[in-house]
Amino acid sequence: MQTLWDYRYAHRTQKMKGSAIREMLAFSEIKDVISFAGGMPAPEIFPIEKFREACDKVLRENGAECLQYGSTDGYLPLREMIARHACRYGINVTAENILPTSGSQQALDLIGRIFINRGDSILVESPTYLGALQAWNTYGAEFIPVPFDQDGMRTDKLEERLRAGIKFIYVLPNFQNPTGVTLSYERRLQLIELAEKYGVPIIEDDPYGQLRYEGEHLPAVEVLDSQTRSQESCYSGNVIYLSTFSKTLAPGIRLAWVIAPPEIIQKLILAKQGADLHTSTFNQITAFEVANGGFLNEHVKIIRKVYRERRDVMLDSLAEYMPEGIEWTHPKGGLFLWVTFPKNINTKDFFNKALDKQVAFVPGAPFFAEGGGENTMRLNFSNAKPEMISAGIGRLSEVIKNHLLTRNS
Amino acid sequence: MQTLWDYRYAHRTQKMKGSAIREMLAFSEIKDVISFAGGMPAPEIFPIEKFREACDKVLRENGAECLQYGSTDGYLPLREMIARHACRYGINVTAENILPTSGSQQALDLIGRIFINRGDSILVESPTYLGALQAWNTYGAEFIPVPFDQDGMRTDKLEERLRAGIKFIYVLPNFQNPTGVTLSYERRLQLIELAEKYGVPIIEDDPYGQLRYEGEHLPAVEVLDSQTRSQESCYSGNVIYLSTFSKTLAPGIRLAWVIAPPEIIQKLILAKQGADLHTSTFNQITAFEVANGGFLNEHVKIIRKVYRERRDVMLDSLAEYMPEGIEWTHPKGGLFLWVTFPKNINTKDFFNKALDKQVAFVPGAPFFAEGGGENTMRLNFSNAKPEMISAGIGRLSEVIKNHLLTRNS
Repeated sequence: MQTLWDYRYAHRTQKMKGSAIREMLAFSEIKDVISFAGGMPAPEIFPIEKFREACDKVLRENGAECLQYGSTDGYLPLREMIARHACRYGINVTAENILPTSGSQQALDLIGRIFINRGDSILVESPTYLGALQAWNTYGAEFIPVPFDQDGMRTDKLEERLRAGIKFIYVLPNFQNPTGVTLSYERRLQLIELAEKYGVPIIEDDPYGQLRYEGEHLPAVEVLDSQTRSQESCYSGNVIYLSTFSKTLAPGIRLAWVIAPPEIIQKLILAKQGADLHTSTFNQITAFEVANGGFLNEHVKIIRKVYRERRDVMLDSLAEYMPEGIEWTHPKGGLFLWVTFPKNINTKDFFNKALDKQVAFVPGAPFFAEGGGENTMRLNFSNAKPEMISAGIGRLSEVIKNHLLTRNS
Repeated sequence: MQTLWDYRYAHRTQKMKGSAIREMLAFSEIKDVISFAGGMPAPEIFPIEKFREACDKVLRENGAECLQYGSTDGYLPLREMIARHACRYGINVTAENILPTSGSQQALDLIGRIFINRGDSILVESPTYLGALQAWNTYGAEFIPVPFDQDGMRTDKLEERLRAGIKFIYVLPNFQNPTGVTLSYERRLQLIELAEKYGVPIIEDDPYGQLRYEGEHLPAVEVLDSQTRSQESCYSGNVIYLSTFSKTLAPGIRLAWVIAPPEIIQKLILAKQGADLHTSTFNQITAFEVANGGFLNEHVKIIRKVYRERRDVMLDSLAEYMPEGIEWTHPKGGLFLWVTFPKNINTKDFFNKALDKQVAFVPGAPFFAEGGGENTMRLNFSNAKPEMISAGIGRLSEVIKNHLLTRNS
């Protein structure tokens, strides 16, 4: 369709990608396909009844406020609740450190908006969360990937990269998306030490921290940074911390938050005013009503139990069905694991074959900021039920075996 | 608080303003202040009970979908409903022309993201909607103001400005924010003709079009543009049209939409993916449930009746109480009217005095992209009840009379 808009797109639209993976995800939602492709929570355990009661209550008691414009700063009781929750995990902040956002994706966007000038270098894990790359491409970021192993970002490779002049470091320390890997305690300390040495601040993205299925909780990078600076562990402000209700309550309400120094919160508020004015008042009040009074903690226990079983079924099925020469991570929490094939295999080559057999995955290459990773894939274990997981891994293994045979013949 | 983030802000944060007016709005929400400052709908007529029933129904019948991630494209039945609604007003589009957004503010942001390069010139009414200026400042827009009178943008002043090389024209044709003025039929035609002559496309922002209290509905700029091009009035695609549920259902659910050619919708979807992944599934499904089946049209009749009375009370009170030499617009719809003082009066000078007398307004200057307008103010008539409006205008008139006396003595 020829219109007066033709040839008027901004230069930044050339960097707006994501359609390849979006199309793959769309395919994977076809009926009867067992999908390990998305990152969706298990809908069977959404607290639907609790939401129904909460909506009923807040609309009866507080309907006019729920449906009216709200302030960009967010709903104060929700911010206070999030601050109390953070304090329980050693992040010593108050409501003035909290900004509710329209999902974590918006938090990433607003951070890009207030910090990234065209050409700025951002240090990222390799692979890293695709949504961060998408958000920051808009602002012209350059990504400097740091190699990664089973203990997370390789901090021994960090220093040479920090010398290059880095705007900030982006890290997902717990059960990282896409790999499921956790940054070890020692590396958290090394990361803080090097960041301090080169004066580079950190964005800590922690959507899955509550979803640990084995081992001990590790202190947040933010907590360790604050501890190294003061005996009272006052919030140091060098680490901006992100988390969300998407994995613990429900992603459909689009509600997440940023923890940052008050000065940065004020800048984020100005940016948010231009971006979407404010996050839905109704959703903030309802989420507060659902989460408050201990429900969130109880509900997270159910999620952990359900996802631990699914993870175990996926690990067992991989061990049982997968041909030799293929490796995968053993996540201690979260929603994903990561499969690595021999170097000469490109997982995209059998994506369609897998779909023909009604099973879907996500090829790993898009998660690498600067290319590579063609021999990897991400598998989600939170969405499908256990019997579907073992059936799906069975099908996928058959596809892979056939692919390997065809290639070798 | 000294942190590693200091001196790391992006250049664009220098253009992020809005705190002055935000602080004024915050003041005006103090208890017992009669506020004409904000742009809030009347909470007494929010369809709270209808929302309560809708939430109950959609969570019972469709809870898992409501709370799950959704596609960036938006909820298809909602898009289809919006398309049908647009067709009734002569905008002949289908669901593929519709993108639901997290409020109209997000629509403005996404449009800036895909079209505005640093330094691009955008033609705006003078004064214009502050939110558009905020959204597009982020992307480095330069604003070219077009003078304005009681018939809207002065199209006789348009041509000289169009010669300058303009990215697009931004217009609010119906009951404009902040002035309440409507672009006349003749000027709509002139606008289209000149836009076509210079090959410049148009953004038509129409949040209040449904809220007309007198006179005949005027066809949208989009409709007139399409009619001049084809006998069947196929959607021409030269006008991107924005509207919202904020003024007809409730602003607290943050739900608006863009109407554009499918190619542009696809670009907006990619931009939205990076901005907030998708608009709340729950809010989209609930709003569909509330609005569908004729409720929206019936509810808008109630809003019109209530706001028409409030507008009339405000106009009558202004006529009764205001000293001579002061003029105001007579809006045929919408939420606002606009007051103009003699050139030597600065309305900011008596903002605090008004607040002392427990009445609030918004000074007009921030609505001018390139300065001026110190002698103007915006008054909102939708939020306060009729008896409060007449009391508030009485108080405000006293403040103004005293201010004029003090100045002259």
